[in-house]
Amino acid sequence: MKLSKERLEEIEKLEESIGYIFKNKNLIDVALTHSSYINESKDENKSSNERLEFLGDSILDLIVSEELYKNHKTYPEGKLTKIRSRIVCTSSFSKASEKFNLSSYLLFGKGEESHNGREKKSVKADTFEAFCAAIYLDAGYDFLKDFLMKNYYEIVKELLENDLLFIDYKTKLQEYFNKTNRIILKYKLVKEEGPEHNKTFYMEVSAKNKKLSTGKGKNKKEAEQMAARIAYKKLTNE
Amino acid sequence: MKLSKERLEEIEKLEESIGYIFKNKNLIDVALTHSSYINESKDENKSSNERLEFLGDSILDLIVSEELYKNHKTYPEGKLTKIRSRIVCTSSFSKASEKFNLSSYLLFGKGEESHNGREKKSVKADTFEAFCAAIYLDAGYDFLKDFLMKNYYEIVKELLENDLLFIDYKTKLQEYFNKTNRIILKYKLVKEEGPEHNKTFYMEVSAKNKKLSTGKGKNKKEAEQMAARIAYKKLTNE
Repeated sequence: MKLSKERLEEIEKLEESIGYIFKNKNLIDVALTHSSYINESKDENKSSNERLEFLGDSILDLIVSEELYKNHKTYPEGKLTKIRSRIVCTSSFSKASEKFNLSSYLLFGKGEESHNGREKKSVKADTFEAFCAAIYLDAGYDFLKDFLMKNYYEIVKELLENDLLFIDYKTKLQEYFNKTNRIILKYKLVKEEGPEHNKTFYMEVSAKNKKLSTGKGKNKKEAEQMAARIAYKKLTNE
Repeated sequence: MKLSKERLEEIEKLEESIGYIFKNKNLIDVALTHSSYINESKDENKSSNERLEFLGDSILDLIVSEELYKNHKTYPEGKLTKIRSRIVCTSSFSKASEKFNLSSYLLFGKGEESHNGREKKSVKADTFEAFCAAIYLDAGYDFLKDFLMKNYYEIVKELLENDLLFIDYKTKLQEYFNKTNRIILKYKLVKEEGPEHNKTFYMEVSAKNKKLSTGKGKNKKEAEQMAARIAYKKLTNE
């Protein structure tokens, strides 16, 4: 189906920002069309991104599984599964969606919009899945894999490094100090910024009143973990 | 690692039966090595198929998703998800494993063997996943997809057609007769064969003492559904 001039201009803007030009513009148009838009417009020629989301979920699952399988040859299956479940999830996909600012291109129903639906993590994550499926169908598996390694890998790395489920750096750092001189570490809040619903916290960790490092995060725990991680890596040269 | 002459001969036999020769024999050797064998042998140079199974699961998920996506353009996401969950499952993978007789090539621990572990559906399904991952790594996605379309598609088709979750042919057939002359259909067991733990049942469906068709299955319900399906398709030329 023929896209409007305005829509094509929007798609062009996205293409510029991600560095890829779609051969089939309809694919990326559908990927960026929420079901709430279809329900309101009743346009039978247009489709929502739900089917692409179905496909994208499986594609992302395989790309992540294959990378984990190939790059962690000593990890047993259980550990691979645990890590995969932290990467292939709403929270991580929603972050990736934000990186590409996909929400701003998403055709969305007015009713849902008024309930702030566009900002929902699940909506963002679904859009990212559909977006990946569109790239996959337009450019193939290998291209999408490279694209994600360039653009998404950092998000994943940070996510895993900050993940309390995997490494508890506060404990690791305290154990490091216990080995040498049994100093109790202190954490304090040094700054808060941003609006009430989206604050960033800065926590400082110190040993014997000597500042070791500062970390930031969406809550105090996350900021403490990041501070501990930075200090631990400095001290151990890891 | 170097495989024994006996193992290589076994692999060759499998290769002949599936019509594919592995470039990397270690891959298929690992795919056909159960963790119970590794636990008993304590051979640190050998690996079990668990990591390949992790990868294979994602590969099969994508192949099935992509086929469903491309071949059922009018199905909404919910229906695609429902069908996928019936294909990507232990029961279907275990059937596929039986088709290639993978269990007979599987290195297996004696302890587990004595508990009849080799015959477990989950073991068979896991072996199939690892087997598919080995083909994927050795020959690529497209080759594996073609291989499965040639060798596995029939299993999937039969599984879905017999699936009571999707179409209840007994009800459909009765409704068909209600429309015309309100005849009550009768089902009767006409044959049972096979050993106690693996019987096949044959059920016949008739209308006004006139036989319509016979179906077979692993239980009476399955056989009735098949009989109804055959009769329904005959009557409606579907």
